[in-house]
Amino acid sequence: MARCLTIGAAQLGPIARDESRPQVVERLIALLHQAKAQGCELVVFPELALTTFFPRWYVEDQGDVDAWFEREMPGPQTRRLFDTAAKLGLGFSIGYAELVEEKGRTRRFNTAILVDPQGNIVGKYRKIHLPGHDQHEPWRQFQHLEKRYLETGNLGFRTFDVFGGRLGMCICNDRRWPETYRVMGLQGVEMVLLGYNTPVHNPPAPEHDALGLHHNRLVMQAGAYQNATWVVGVAKCGNEEGVPMIAGTQIIAPSGETLAQAATEGDELITYRCDLDLGRSYRSSVFDFARHREPQHYSLITATKGPIEPEEAQRLDERLGSGLTPSGGA
Amino acid sequence: MARCLTIGAAQLGPIARDESRPQVVERLIALLHQAKAQGCELVVFPELALTTFFPRWYVEDQGDVDAWFEREMPGPQTRRLFDTAAKLGLGFSIGYAELVEEKGRTRRFNTAILVDPQGNIVGKYRKIHLPGHDQHEPWRQFQHLEKRYLETGNLGFRTFDVFGGRLGMCICNDRRWPETYRVMGLQGVEMVLLGYNTPVHNPPAPEHDALGLHHNRLVMQAGAYQNATWVVGVAKCGNEEGVPMIAGTQIIAPSGETLAQAATEGDELITYRCDLDLGRSYRSSVFDFARHREPQHYSLITATKGPIEPEEAQRLDERLGSGLTPSGGA
Repeated sequence: MARCLTIGAAQLGPIARDESRPQVVERLIALLHQAKAQGCELVVFPELALTTFFPRWYVEDQGDVDAWFEREMPGPQTRRLFDTAAKLGLGFSIGYAELVEEKGRTRRFNTAILVDPQGNIVGKYRKIHLPGHDQHEPWRQFQHLEKRYLETGNLGFRTFDVFGGRLGMCICNDRRWPETYRVMGLQGVEMVLLGYNTPVHNPPAPEHDALGLHHNRLVMQAGAYQNATWVVGVAKCGNEEGVPMIAGTQIIAPSGETLAQAATEGDELITYRCDLDLGRSYRSSVFDFARHREPQHYSLITATKGPIEPEEAQRLDERLGSGLTPSGGA
Repeated sequence: MARCLTIGAAQLGPIARDESRPQVVERLIALLHQAKAQGCELVVFPELALTTFFPRWYVEDQGDVDAWFEREMPGPQTRRLFDTAAKLGLGFSIGYAELVEEKGRTRRFNTAILVDPQGNIVGKYRKIHLPGHDQHEPWRQFQHLEKRYLETGNLGFRTFDVFGGRLGMCICNDRRWPETYRVMGLQGVEMVLLGYNTPVHNPPAPEHDALGLHHNRLVMQAGAYQNATWVVGVAKCGNEEGVPMIAGTQIIAPSGETLAQAATEGDELITYRCDLDLGRSYRSSVFDFARHREPQHYSLITATKGPIEPEEAQRLDERLGSGLTPSGGA
């Protein structure tokens, strides 16, 4: 018997710098109504879905930066989103910039939350792979200052048993790293929700600009297949404040096939009725981790952050008891 | 200045059970001559390129099984391959079943070697991710008894500084596991050579049979892109002893783009002049591991072989000092 969850992937077009939270929330609510009409149970909004993608600007005044952050969720300007979703009986996930007092200091994260159909926050994720740089680089046409304005997430890659399945979240650049999906895959994740803001143009490597949509699809499909999970990737896209961003919103099955995808670069909902059991046949055959993984040979993945020389790798491997240990019967 | 290595990916059609080693070696030599004529420097042959894919049969007599193994390399029947390659000034890699006395006992591996243009073996890899099963399963149309006839490789995922670059190897099912490429990527690998024998039909999950070529391409492209490395994937394919196997031999750039691919399911050489520096722009930007990886959040990857429950995952994560450790400045 199929265990289905009908998903709405709610792509957003650009959000202007001077667009207010209430204005954006109205756009989100329009998509919620459409999702309800199309039978959705869970709506996925993109990363930083309440504001423009502000890391593109170097801003000296921290107060000005903090204006893009949420101090509570829901807050006075976002409560209407929660109330409407609850009234419609819809769950949703949404990304936003989070400002929080934690461990005696002010901390800022690139966050996504998962909200159940009653309006309760049932899952939270803080972005771990922050791309970009932390110093102003005036030579760039636009900045990518996530490493300046935000801290590395401190909640790990958790999964949440909600909506009748096991769900996980990650954000934007996280999707390019196979470790992201694997840590959730090792917890039996069945669906990964992720939003992104990805400029077409990457100033340090403009020679890759034509490949943005190819890479976007490649990493999400591979993450889905290699972990036998659905992946719902949702863009904020189009030309935002003069910076074109890729679209490519799509819903990917555990087979690694894209089964639905957006047609535009604007506000657009795509839906799919996802059978959460579809990953089972992979998990019990080619990707039966307990039978087929060989972690004694993976030690470098956690033992080093950056690349190391092969000689050092081999020493490390031997010291950690992996490389030369017979493991045929392990 | 480009740092180019011209590769020949030498796909093989089926090898019959009664085909002798000298007969197969003649086919390999024909491909070597063609490679020489097309300006190749290094020719990549597939997995188990000297025999039929014997794990498809359940054979009780170990002596009969061992007839498919090589006791020395080169041996009397394979020396001609080495001599011809050296005469042509060609390097090559090739997969074969290796029988070796090691640690006081007979051991059997699914092995690939890398041979320099002078005929010296300069690299060896023993397959780590053995697929299939270890007991006879008569309900299958054909067996996949790699876990019965072979031991898990004990040499790790090494890299080798040869042919003017840093090369690595893996074999067949290894390519489906992102850990394979990552362990080599963390050593700065620039090109991964891999051969495979992949049946179209997977008896435990026949519903995936139509996706063999999609998965083949997906995992190799993702491994290439996510580690900024060339990947050369070479099939033994076609209908071998009644079992159809996928082709899909291809040469993939660090961009994750397939730049050359085979057209047939038989013996066929495809070539590409690969600039080993093409990965640099990825390694210095989006995949600058030292700046962007967050291994404190990857601990599950090496801490567990099979999947674990989220609660256990979180305890493990906290015990290993990852999940809740601020790492913004790490």
